[in-house]
Amino acid sequence: MKILAIETSAKAASVCLTEDDFLIAQSYQNSGLTHSQTVLPMCEQMLKHCGVTLQQVDVIACAAGPGSFTGLRIGLSTAKGLAWSAEKPCCAVSTLEAMAWQMAHMEGELLCAMDARRGQVYNARFLAHGAELKRLCPDRAISLADLFSEIDGKTEQIIIGDGAQLCYNYAEGLGYPVKLAPPQLRFQSAWGVAHAAWVQAQAGNLCSAQELAANYIRLSQAERERLEREQSR
Amino acid sequence: MKILAIETSAKAASVCLTEDDFLIAQSYQNSGLTHSQTVLPMCEQMLKHCGVTLQQVDVIACAAGPGSFTGLRIGLSTAKGLAWSAEKPCCAVSTLEAMAWQMAHMEGELLCAMDARRGQVYNARFLAHGAELKRLCPDRAISLADLFSEIDGKTEQIIIGDGAQLCYNYAEGLGYPVKLAPPQLRFQSAWGVAHAAWVQAQAGNLCSAQELAANYIRLSQAERERLEREQSR
Repeated sequence: MKILAIETSAKAASVCLTEDDFLIAQSYQNSGLTHSQTVLPMCEQMLKHCGVTLQQVDVIACAAGPGSFTGLRIGLSTAKGLAWSAEKPCCAVSTLEAMAWQMAHMEGELLCAMDARRGQVYNARFLAHGAELKRLCPDRAISLADLFSEIDGKTEQIIIGDGAQLCYNYAEGLGYPVKLAPPQLRFQSAWGVAHAAWVQAQAGNLCSAQELAANYIRLSQAERERLEREQSR
Repeated sequence: MKILAIETSAKAASVCLTEDDFLIAQSYQNSGLTHSQTVLPMCEQMLKHCGVTLQQVDVIACAAGPGSFTGLRIGLSTAKGLAWSAEKPCCAVSTLEAMAWQMAHMEGELLCAMDARRGQVYNARFLAHGAELKRLCPDRAISLADLFSEIDGKTEQIIIGDGAQLCYNYAEGLGYPVKLAPPQLRFQSAWGVAHAAWVQAQAGNLCSAQELAANYIRLSQAERERLEREQSR
């Protein structure tokens, strides 16, 4: 099964092509350029370099959130467009679970964190053992105080994601044992999305291009402000 | 310091751009296409996508061997051409050391192995601790029997490289404790080359485009056959 995967949930953008669980190609960049300029050319050129056509791809996978609202929309729109035109099924993957897969070869507790601003991180926790993941909590937006009050302070946490440094600094201040994922695996990348999609595809957990949707977890700033205005009337 | 790194020592080809030890972009492919078709466009498009010109790159690094003779020549020729035209210093990196860096976040013994055919692997061994590597032997071509007679059979070996499966099967037959590097880190990639080059650059270990040379470790088939003919006269 050939999977084309897209990851645009934060500053880094990446796309990859896998055959089952084997990485055929990946293109990653964390250059500060906007995803709307980079992601579609990255997909096109990667497939072209591999001599693979979009028709030969079986599933189009995308990190569906949580993450940057704009970033997610660019990735999901690209995935929808490619899947709709080529009539391919899609797979929506949790951004946090995808990044956890990058470190599933470790043994121990993984703490996935993205900077969600407003004193929060998007977070999920996993137990990695024997290259498998066991989810310890649902994807959520949580304050650093609440997150670290939940952790016992004795079990080492391996921290992944663009919010890793934020969590690391906070946990170090508490004297908790923490370790940063190595630089080449710290940021979300499409390989994790492809791997999670492969697991989901085997369980029949696919959807159509129309059904592919973001999971923002919390309201956008515009929605939040409207709600506040309505409630204060 | 911006480093452009190239890895073409085996079937997978990759290029990456780093700023010191931070990964800005990487393009990887293991599609079976020849490196002479893919590597130069991969470099050009990666730099273009990042909005970085060749003039803005400080060092051009390349995996210099051991590895596929043809593969190494394509990578080194590309590095030489880019460095010569842009008047940049080069950095020749051990292929085996570069792949070890990919797993330097583990704790324990790393066994790097590439299939060298004729019953041998290109191999080097490293001790990984605290994200640092300690080299345990020089790069070499060695038979599986000699390699595993050197290892005590009690200390777990984490095996990396396109010869990993070969070593894993052999070691399992002996009942030695071994673990394969995870699929996304098993094959050599340019990030390891860039990291090794960053370490070498800080020690002033750079060279000119003219001086950049392959380290094949053993003679090519043509040279070996000529030597055999000469000796049998």
